[in-house]
Amino acid sequence: MALPDFHDVERAAACLKGIVRETPIQTSRRLDDHSHATVFLKCENFQRVGTFKFRGAYNAVTQRSSSKPVVALSSGNHAQGIALACRLSGKEAHLVMPEPVNPIKRAAVQEYGGIVHVPSGSRDAESFSQDLVRELQGEWVEAFNDPDVIAGQGTAALELLGYVPALDVLLGPIGGGGLLSGTCLAAHGLNPKIRVYACEPAGALDALYSVLENRIVPQEYPQTIAEGLRTSLGTLTLPILRDHLAGFFVVEEEEIVAAMRFVYERMKLVIEPASAVAVAPLLRQEPALQGKRVGVIISGGNVDLSRYFDGLLGS
Amino acid sequence: MALPDFHDVERAAACLKGIVRETPIQTSRRLDDHSHATVFLKCENFQRVGTFKFRGAYNAVTQRSSSKPVVALSSGNHAQGIALACRLSGKEAHLVMPEPVNPIKRAAVQEYGGIVHVPSGSRDAESFSQDLVRELQGEWVEAFNDPDVIAGQGTAALELLGYVPALDVLLGPIGGGGLLSGTCLAAHGLNPKIRVYACEPAGALDALYSVLENRIVPQEYPQTIAEGLRTSLGTLTLPILRDHLAGFFVVEEEEIVAAMRFVYERMKLVIEPASAVAVAPLLRQEPALQGKRVGVIISGGNVDLSRYFDGLLGS
Repeated sequence: MALPDFHDVERAAACLKGIVRETPIQTSRRLDDHSHATVFLKCENFQRVGTFKFRGAYNAVTQRSSSKPVVALSSGNHAQGIALACRLSGKEAHLVMPEPVNPIKRAAVQEYGGIVHVPSGSRDAESFSQDLVRELQGEWVEAFNDPDVIAGQGTAALELLGYVPALDVLLGPIGGGGLLSGTCLAAHGLNPKIRVYACEPAGALDALYSVLENRIVPQEYPQTIAEGLRTSLGTLTLPILRDHLAGFFVVEEEEIVAAMRFVYERMKLVIEPASAVAVAPLLRQEPALQGKRVGVIISGGNVDLSRYFDGLLGS
Repeated sequence: MALPDFHDVERAAACLKGIVRETPIQTSRRLDDHSHATVFLKCENFQRVGTFKFRGAYNAVTQRSSSKPVVALSSGNHAQGIALACRLSGKEAHLVMPEPVNPIKRAAVQEYGGIVHVPSGSRDAESFSQDLVRELQGEWVEAFNDPDVIAGQGTAALELLGYVPALDVLLGPIGGGGLLSGTCLAAHGLNPKIRVYACEPAGALDALYSVLENRIVPQEYPQTIAEGLRTSLGTLTLPILRDHLAGFFVVEEEEIVAAMRFVYERMKLVIEPASAVAVAPLLRQEPALQGKRVGVIISGGNVDLSRYFDGLLGS
């Protein structure tokens, strides 16, 4: 597969126009005070399905010109993105969700009309998915290692830079690298001087080692509450990231929770742990960010507060 | 005191320009689907100090042209608004907070430089406050029964109608009536046909009876989780509301929680119970709202999620 480039991000933006929500960019004097920087949060927590993943999913689903069913493997956000993208473009969506399946996420996928497949415990989810693609003669859309997905994810940074062109730095969380790869392409297509940093939990440090060693170091025993960041890089995301990244910020679990708390208490935004990973370097006042204009891609807000609401009227 | 009018709201908007945050207006296809209406949420949960109260507080503090200390009585949001307004205009803020004092709210007031006074249990907070005004030769700013406060609160609706002029209906929660009075003045100054409804918890129904009986029916034993709505109307808010309101929607406690949950799960916004009171009539598909373009003033987002964050890393 050819690597995507800036023009693919621009094409994706045209394709997504009127379909994705142009999410708000939020600022906070108190975040600026605490970080000694000028910070712009691109709030993809307010994106449709609650995460940036809808951008890449919709771009990939609509770039496949056939009307074949779409098959994807995901236990969460990518599955919801694909299900909604297919509903909007009149295609059938088949989502392979490995056990244990979160019932809220399963219900959300089904609410968008997606057909859920749960491989039995002994079956490898990847090979199950490939069998399903053959059986249905379907189109496969990988969660991050796909040029159309990467280009779609880059449109969040493109929107942010449209409103705030003079950014010095962009921060984003890194799991499979789809969001960060697209962010790099968008940023450097507009301004090669912007420094893009990947933010990674200390308990799932595979991307840092992969970029350093220039090979995909698999993520085998991730230890982090940032669910979305437990995956390894892919064959497309690794070379893009090696070319573009200015560096990595490594974040501890306590810093993730502290950043979630800060952003909620001071800005009234509920952000998922993966997003908090990209805010934490600001709160510890990383020298590379001091005095800079910093954009942060807030990847999503799918945090389960149902126990909080359950407790509101007492028992 | 003379009743405030539309021109006071316009003057307040000029005074607040560049000081208040112009809060986002959020929409949701799913909220529209569930309510059979077209809904625009004016998100004052993203206002400075997390509530619309900052608007009225800042307007009132700066309309008092003297540099005298400001005294206010409030256990929560109004106190924070006054403290920040005074800091920004170089005045001393004295906040009388009756017991039991919420330590988070007390800390927030002090963080803005406010001086907190807690009357001893046997002292009436109102007379304690008036003694303090005399002792300090200070300026008193009531939380809602003040023309400048009312005019300031009206600027939220003014902003909303600036972006979405063709609204049929405006909804807001009612406690002391400051927000709703200002909303009425703003709406009917621009378009007398807009129907403004007050939304009130069934467990704190004093405003409905006050308007029906044209006298202030005191709120004696409020039974609602919507803390901000436990107060009675005032001598300024009652006549404005009688003149302008199209009616009341009465909301049960279970509906408040269901609306908080819906708005969080579908729109990723954490709103306080008082705000949910104004969303609930939409979710039960009130006939007067069907097919209409409805604006809702989301009053604030000061919800304490600290126990949720405390639990994130296990124990």
